[in-house]
Amino acid sequence: MIDFVLLIVIAICIIALGLAAILTRNLLSQDEGTPKMREVADAIRVGAEAFIKRQYSTIAVLAIVSAVVIFAIYYLTGQQAIALATAAAFIVGATCSAVAGVVAMWIAVRTNIRTAAAAQTSDGKALDFSFRGGAISGLIITSMSLLGVSLTYIALGADPTHTPFVIIGFAFGASFVALFAQLGGGIYTKAADVGADIVGKIEAGIPEDDVRNPATIADLVGDNVGDCAGRGADLFESTAAENIGAMILGVALFPIFGVNGILFPIVMCSLGLLASMIGILSVKGVDGADPMDAMNRGYYITALISAFFLAGGVYFLLGATPGWMYFVLAGFIGIALSVAFLRVTLYYTDHHYRPVQDIADASETGAGTNLIMGFSVGLETTAVPAVLIGISLLASYWCGTMTGIPQGGLYGTAVATIGMLMVCAYVLTMDTFGPIADNAGGIVEMSQAPDEVRHRMDKLDAAGNTTKALTKGYAIGSASLAVFLLFNAYMADISKLTGKAFDVVNLANVNVFVGALIGAMLVFLFASLAIRAVSKTAQYVIEEVRIQFKDPGIMAGTKKPDYARVIDITTQGALKNMILPGALVILFPIVIGVTMKYEALAGFLMVATITGILMALILNNSGGAWDNAKKYIETGVHGGKKSEAHKAAVIGDTVGDPFKDTAGPSLHVLIKLLATLTLVLAPLFI
Amino acid sequence: MIDFVLLIVIAICIIALGLAAILTRNLLSQDEGTPKMREVADAIRVGAEAFIKRQYSTIAVLAIVSAVVIFAIYYLTGQQAIALATAAAFIVGATCSAVAGVVAMWIAVRTNIRTAAAAQTSDGKALDFSFRGGAISGLIITSMSLLGVSLTYIALGADPTHTPFVIIGFAFGASFVALFAQLGGGIYTKAADVGADIVGKIEAGIPEDDVRNPATIADLVGDNVGDCAGRGADLFESTAAENIGAMILGVALFPIFGVNGILFPIVMCSLGLLASMIGILSVKGVDGADPMDAMNRGYYITALISAFFLAGGVYFLLGATPGWMYFVLAGFIGIALSVAFLRVTLYYTDHHYRPVQDIADASETGAGTNLIMGFSVGLETTAVPAVLIGISLLASYWCGTMTGIPQGGLYGTAVATIGMLMVCAYVLTMDTFGPIADNAGGIVEMSQAPDEVRHRMDKLDAAGNTTKALTKGYAIGSASLAVFLLFNAYMADISKLTGKAFDVVNLANVNVFVGALIGAMLVFLFASLAIRAVSKTAQYVIEEVRIQFKDPGIMAGTKKPDYARVIDITTQGALKNMILPGALVILFPIVIGVTMKYEALAGFLMVATITGILMALILNNSGGAWDNAKKYIETGVHGGKKSEAHKAAVIGDTVGDPFKDTAGPSLHVLIKLLATLTLVLAPLFI
Repeated sequence: MIDFVLLIVIAICIIALGLAAILTRNLLSQDEGTPKMREVADAIRVGAEAFIKRQYSTIAVLAIVSAVVIFAIYYLTGQQAIALATAAAFIVGATCSAVAGVVAMWIAVRTNIRTAAAAQTSDGKALDFSFRGGAISGLIITSMSLLGVSLTYIALGADPTHTPFVIIGFAFGASFVALFAQLGGGIYTKAADVGADIVGKIEAGIPEDDVRNPATIADLVGDNVGDCAGRGADLFESTAAENIGAMILGVALFPIFGVNGILFPIVMCSLGLLASMIGILSVKGVDGADPMDAMNRGYYITALISAFFLAGGVYFLLGATPGWMYFVLAGFIGIALSVAFLRVTLYYTDHHYRPVQDIADASETGAGTNLIMGFSVGLETTAVPAVLIGISLLASYWCGTMTGIPQGGLYGTAVATIGMLMVCAYVLTMDTFGPIADNAGGIVEMSQAPDEVRHRMDKLDAAGNTTKALTKGYAIGSASLAVFLLFNAYMADISKLTGKAFDVVNLANVNVFVGALIGAMLVFLFASLAIRAVSKTAQYVIEEVRIQFKDPGIMAGTKKPDYARVIDITTQGALKNMILPGALVILFPIVIGVTMKYEALAGFLMVATITGILMALILNNSGGAWDNAKKYIETGVHGGKKSEAHKAAVIGDTVGDPFKDTAGPSLHVLIKLLATLTLVLAPLFI
Repeated sequence: MIDFVLLIVIAICIIALGLAAILTRNLLSQDEGTPKMREVADAIRVGAEAFIKRQYSTIAVLAIVSAVVIFAIYYLTGQQAIALATAAAFIVGATCSAVAGVVAMWIAVRTNIRTAAAAQTSDGKALDFSFRGGAISGLIITSMSLLGVSLTYIALGADPTHTPFVIIGFAFGASFVALFAQLGGGIYTKAADVGADIVGKIEAGIPEDDVRNPATIADLVGDNVGDCAGRGADLFESTAAENIGAMILGVALFPIFGVNGILFPIVMCSLGLLASMIGILSVKGVDGADPMDAMNRGYYITALISAFFLAGGVYFLLGATPGWMYFVLAGFIGIALSVAFLRVTLYYTDHHYRPVQDIADASETGAGTNLIMGFSVGLETTAVPAVLIGISLLASYWCGTMTGIPQGGLYGTAVATIGMLMVCAYVLTMDTFGPIADNAGGIVEMSQAPDEVRHRMDKLDAAGNTTKALTKGYAIGSASLAVFLLFNAYMADISKLTGKAFDVVNLANVNVFVGALIGAMLVFLFASLAIRAVSKTAQYVIEEVRIQFKDPGIMAGTKKPDYARVIDITTQGALKNMILPGALVILFPIVIGVTMKYEALAGFLMVATITGILMALILNNSGGAWDNAKKYIETGVHGGKKSEAHKAAVIGDTVGDPFKDTAGPSLHVLIKLLATLTLVLAPLFI
């Protein structure tokens, strides 16, 4: 039975990889546009590859040290039997995550040019190319995550009551790499962007993506290394961590479900991958149509098929339980939550609705009021999502309870999480589509293509902004369901280690309360350092661009600026400035756990998670709303481009940049890193 | 014994009121300056009195409705015996809080003109007057709080095991009024300030406090109604709530300490009032000296004498316990925390240190980087305070445990809270000094006094900015110790009502976790609405000022602008816009408590408190740092006034205004309001 179920997972993964290969071959055979376009695209590719190489070399050193520490901790705390396995799983997870990042970047820097070339003739084709580029990443990353967990499970002996606790090393390795990848990439992309904007748009008054600006190529490189590679690593570790969290819960329910309960999450995710493939193939660009229509339709198709697969999967794997229908209901709640989160995010970041319009209105009275309103909108965006998460958790828990099995409530939340994760590959596709379209737009702009080509790309670029905001909303929503699962995995792990039930985290206990206070603080401190890192790195960029602008040849457009130097400076700055915030979030929970022990650490973990979820919403959505308020004004309202309102909106956008692309997405990773870290290092905290 | 101890409290309060009367008589006999000064001061006084009248009429209606609801809840849930007493205590508390606000405002609008007049000849005298004006408020408010609690205790029959649970109505009444007073006043002051700045400084390019700007008087009125009246009500309810929280804990320890344990908090606070009187009298302005030196010396004197009194008080009241020395140590921890909080706040908001300098540096590259840096500094300021609070809670709990009595740990944290509260009257003095000096500066500016007078006031005004920031730090620090006490009072109350021990708030329970998530969200939503209320009200001000500026006579200075109209518009706007955020924080916990019951509500309360403390630190300190970065640039660095860096810093200051003077201080009240509300309405949640 094990073999058969796992075989389905592996088979679906192989189909997905095959589809990715076909899409890749097809895409690579496409036209690469004008020589000017190729020149820009080559510069981006070289820059991105250089950054990724240096970034992953740094991360590799950190990861190897951590693996040795993990081994030592397990060995010295009397867990010799699993010390090597856990450390090895960590290394495998870290490697897979790195590969996920590299793949996402590799595809993106090859798809951008082909999308730009396609935009010369057809916007439908441009959508097809950029969307399929995203799909290649989505399929490879999701199937790698599933294969990684499945094969590690088999390699470790497929012992149902034991293995899931060991493969958590895999998830921690993935989180570890994702944190630094997202943080370093996020710092890079926004330092280049802020630096380019401040000296270019604000000081020198030249347009965005102007060839004369030496920071433009670095800015375009940033989209690939931050948005593509960073988010790729982020969603890779999400699926891994959440699947393993659900598998550990399955261990507790082994007497009831048998091995089916443990393998349920990965089987369902593989069925979700199948649904995503159908959804991806259903998307077809149409000239002149709104690209969001095609992508939204694909999303709804994926969600609908996932719902069917979910019902079938529950019946097939857990159907022996009398109340299995309630688990189906719980899964539907998860799928519904993913749709609801997209709608809410759209409301807060799209210019058709009140929030963005309010920010645009407030820009009329200057940057001060634009910022006050944007910040107020950001804070407001926590309300509906928090209520939605609360209702989903309570409802799916209730569903689980209705099945009548012990710990059924928890398994209900697990099924909801899995339901939400089933559409992951499709979401990742939409997510990677964004930076590819953005990049293609930059290439078109920098290669001074005709206006009609630019207009085609502008439309795609705007859709990309929307999808990037939406998928961040999805990442938060799925993380917030998953963490509740991971907390319980941590408590199960501690119970197993101490041999007595650990099922109360008493916030009225002074230790736990202090742990919780420090946990919430860590989120703010981390966000502070991530934002500051962008600011520091941007300073280097600003200084360099100012020096180059003093050369009259560059401003006249007769001399090519030194793009490579800005890329190099940004790379160095980003790598240097990612270490402090990254190290902090790893060391803090260890210090709290070692000094105050596991219950206080649980308080730390849970309240850090709550604060992290809400803070990520604030940062992502305020940043997105500021960006779109600026774009809304650029459509001609409130005086359009060059008006005072536009200037104010540009300042708001600059402030929002490190919020939405550095601190916010890094917080997604932080939330799950804390959960996997506490799980792996549990022996230290008892 | 009861009578004797309470007599000491009442006697000290009468001495404090006597000193306040002497200071008032003395102050009122002073010179009221030039006719021009009087004209400005009269306009401020009339505006402030009109606002307070309308504001408290609105609040009175809300309070009476709430009193009826409280009575009904107690009556209908089988608590008929105490229904009337609780509702009556609520009304008394609400009335006292309103009186505290009115007193603070009444003194401030009479001291500002005398301070301005004194500045014509001596800056030492100007400090003396403004500081003593603050002292009058400080003494009256603190003694009224102590008298209110003591007399209500006596009036309710002085039944040690019962009365403290009833007087919580008093604290809730005080919190209720304080919330609306601080919120309405905070919206008023910042809407006028932001409106005046945007149209005056940014659009028309005229200086701050220029007579031609129709919003200047409203801005000066705002200092009185927001900073004086609002903060007066805030600190009034702090002392009340925290004393009652400690008294309820004393009930649990009645078998050990007898009635001494219950009366201990109010006795110690009255001794602190005595120490504050000595500290206040020690402050003497010296011409040419830094005003902060005199005030800081007074603070250290107060803290030192408080420490002695604390040791004596513990020995006298709790000395029968073998480990009483440990309680002394816990009290010292509280006093030390108050000093540490002042130092940390100073570091983050004074231009002599890195954070403010970093923001000033970042202003060189524009408003975008100024804001990013300021926001990053704000987030960073949570770190050290959170660790300090954590250490203080753990250390004072440990001290209490060492006494060996049951629940001793909790009583240790209570003694630490009381230690911190002993200096309250002195802190309130420093706090009210700030807006008085600010107002006097405005009067000097608007009456076009000679430059030397302005320079004298500038120095005092700068000191006032510092003290305002410091006392906000103190308010957060004391609140964060006190809430732990109030949580336990809530749990004791629920235990009493249900008849079974309620001592576990299990965050791993899905209901509690969801409650906690919603609690944290409420803080962000409330901050959003408070900030937005300023923005909305400021819009009305901006429109009116723009209309008046179209009159060429006003800009030429030949025609007097219509100050009263702006005051009226701001008043209406502030009162209208305070209702939604205020109502929200009252209704939310009730809905959660009624639907999800008391344990989930405890999770809600605790995590809302943690988030509220940290968020208030972020808002207060970032606002203070932005303000001082602007002032630092005005001293001539980074190009001084009129430079691009200064323009950027003005935008940062505008954004910080609603953070530090509306949302931040309102969060202080929110934290304690949630605690008193849950206590009073406890019968609803079981």
